[in-house]
Amino acid sequence: MRTRPLKVALLGCGVVGSEVARIMTTHADDLAARIGAPVELAGVAVRRPSKVREGIDPALVTTDATALVKRGDIDVVVEVIGGIEPARTLITTAFEYGASVVSANKALLAQDGAALHAAAEEHGEDLYYEAAVAGAIPLIRPLRESLAGDKINRVMGIVNGTTNFILDKMDSTGAGYQEALDEATALGYAEADPTADVEGFDAAAKAAILAGIAFHTRVRLDDVYREGMTEVTAADFASAKEMGCTIKLLAICERAADGGSVTARVHPAMIPLTHPLASVRGAYNAVFVESDAAGQLMFYGPGAGGAPTASAVLGDLVAVCRNRLSGATGPGESAYAALPVSPMGDVVTRYHISLDVADKPGVLAQVATVFAEHGVSIDTVRQQGKDGEASLVVVTHRASDASLSGTVEALRKLDTVRGVASIMRVEGE
Amino acid sequence: MRTRPLKVALLGCGVVGSEVARIMTTHADDLAARIGAPVELAGVAVRRPSKVREGIDPALVTTDATALVKRGDIDVVVEVIGGIEPARTLITTAFEYGASVVSANKALLAQDGAALHAAAEEHGEDLYYEAAVAGAIPLIRPLRESLAGDKINRVMGIVNGTTNFILDKMDSTGAGYQEALDEATALGYAEADPTADVEGFDAAAKAAILAGIAFHTRVRLDDVYREGMTEVTAADFASAKEMGCTIKLLAICERAADGGSVTARVHPAMIPLTHPLASVRGAYNAVFVESDAAGQLMFYGPGAGGAPTASAVLGDLVAVCRNRLSGATGPGESAYAALPVSPMGDVVTRYHISLDVADKPGVLAQVATVFAEHGVSIDTVRQQGKDGEASLVVVTHRASDASLSGTVEALRKLDTVRGVASIMRVEGE
Repeated sequence: MRTRPLKVALLGCGVVGSEVARIMTTHADDLAARIGAPVELAGVAVRRPSKVREGIDPALVTTDATALVKRGDIDVVVEVIGGIEPARTLITTAFEYGASVVSANKALLAQDGAALHAAAEEHGEDLYYEAAVAGAIPLIRPLRESLAGDKINRVMGIVNGTTNFILDKMDSTGAGYQEALDEATALGYAEADPTADVEGFDAAAKAAILAGIAFHTRVRLDDVYREGMTEVTAADFASAKEMGCTIKLLAICERAADGGSVTARVHPAMIPLTHPLASVRGAYNAVFVESDAAGQLMFYGPGAGGAPTASAVLGDLVAVCRNRLSGATGPGESAYAALPVSPMGDVVTRYHISLDVADKPGVLAQVATVFAEHGVSIDTVRQQGKDGEASLVVVTHRASDASLSGTVEALRKLDTVRGVASIMRVEGE
Repeated sequence: MRTRPLKVALLGCGVVGSEVARIMTTHADDLAARIGAPVELAGVAVRRPSKVREGIDPALVTTDATALVKRGDIDVVVEVIGGIEPARTLITTAFEYGASVVSANKALLAQDGAALHAAAEEHGEDLYYEAAVAGAIPLIRPLRESLAGDKINRVMGIVNGTTNFILDKMDSTGAGYQEALDEATALGYAEADPTADVEGFDAAAKAAILAGIAFHTRVRLDDVYREGMTEVTAADFASAKEMGCTIKLLAICERAADGGSVTARVHPAMIPLTHPLASVRGAYNAVFVESDAAGQLMFYGPGAGGAPTASAVLGDLVAVCRNRLSGATGPGESAYAALPVSPMGDVVTRYHISLDVADKPGVLAQVATVFAEHGVSIDTVRQQGKDGEASLVVVTHRASDASLSGTVEALRKLDTVRGVASIMRVEGE
């Protein structure tokens, strides 16, 4: 074993960073044995230096992250600050000054992954980010390495714990969205401003990263269709139950049937209770992967939290340190396939549509005609009358999102259709 | 991209080998792009050269595996022959002649993993074997790399698809063992001689490999306690159902509570229906991993079959080729922890025991006294009388396997105990 330690600069010492520092200290011997050299925490950049950080030598703490990264003796920079700046500049500076980088920054990777990978490659450094998607669940490495000899056709997952907690609560208790959100906030599963989670921004960033790796194609955040789950109602869950389904906020990355293009999207969807993703409870994450040779795989675990995210960061840290000792770098960006990313209108799936209609003869025929005119084939239809009004629940066969949108637009123009109560995609069949 | 190809020798061209060859041919461009150099199938060693192998140039086929491995220009040997010899000698010869090895050989790895790793290291070559455990499911790499910064405490899984198919069939249809086995055989899920599967030998080999990687400790096949599932009855499933459980053949690798030793075992066990492993159907595999920081993770997918196993082999092939191009090797054996492997008697778990007893006053008191004398605490007890006979079902709290064995031995000596109908461990709580 080499005795000279590898030096690690830790940027950020919040929930994740403090766990990284703690494990680096308490498991120092194990890490050294697994890497082949000791790793030393050489500096910790924080915003509030006065805060007492148990187990961290105050002499290591600095507010000058840039100076820490530029020190010149740092082997690996661990970036757990989050957000775009100053994280982006610090990471590129780290490469310039001869350090590899381990990051948990999904927003930055989704937005600037290509440029960061290029910077890493230019300087012969590693950029690892297992912690950026689905917390502790090994997912980036399996997709990038274990399945490197396979052809991935679909990655579909629950990649946001906050929204899964809320949806699970609505499902199991019959609560409405606001009530379930309030509970998630009280228990610390949702932030004071839950927008990034409930509007699907967080999941969309992860979808962009996963799609890029799975399809060897650059997928930008703007390429990801995004729909939040704030409009999912208790009535939607009742409808889902009638179909033997539940509702999850899914990130779905798909290769088109002809293989010539890909799509990435985030939206709530009904999935059958028999699907492995349906039984993912609470704040857990799970990702379902379908490939040509391997078939169907699923990866399940805690998608967030200090210790789980730190586990992923440290796994990357060990890998990057090993690479450094052997003078090699791990796999970089793989975007050679450069497939076009199709818009949401091209996505083909099934739909569950609830309509409020007039309860009189001929309505069903009118509605069915509109579906037929737009080339959307109906699988089942169920009508319930009540006080001169009726609700019509239509479940379609597979159709493009564009066809479905056209159908709904035309339905809204029918005199007999009082309103479109809900439209939800049906996945996982 | 390098234009000179990396040369691959394929040893074995059965169900897995032919899929490896097929994918290497049909996905040659993708593999080249992902590796950074083309890979060329340089030779295929088979036993029966006359057999027509679609898509494989007959000029590549040879019966002389040793000569192929000794050619001197081979970069990677893919060993999918299985069994101990000649696979072992071919692999060590490959290292001597400057090739890295990708193997799917669980029996060999479980028996001689340490020696093979030493040979690989001596010659500066890679030895990868993702396909040896749980087919297509990325498991070796996540345990060895993704969780390299974490402390794994338990690996518990369904790692044999044949036995899971049989048990699932017994559970869902009420069939007996023989009937379910016959169906598995007819459908090709069980081999003509199913011993390796149903007696747990296959799962024990996988448990040895998993325990070794998880605990950074050499675990030999002999260290693994093994109990098959041929004695599981329809009555056991009925008992399991009453407890809200099902029965699975589990491979369980555990670190003792004090962290100072480890155990590895394979046996049928009741697990609660709410446990993620309970819903693993048919021939699927799934492995549940518990670690200090990451918490609970699960990996799920097809555990066998030509294409899934080939997916794992090819993922390794890409990794080994990348390592070769960068002049590095991947992580080798990590056995620095060298923890003692404790015998089965030290394992602590819960037990479900069915006794046939005389239906008269005082029997329960007698039985309860025996449990107490052996330090085994009873959780629940249920008595059912019928025609002067009664059955007594005892579920214990956690106790050591040695204490339980002592208890059962003493119970058998009681006049009032006519027989011990079944003993089954209860896991996953």
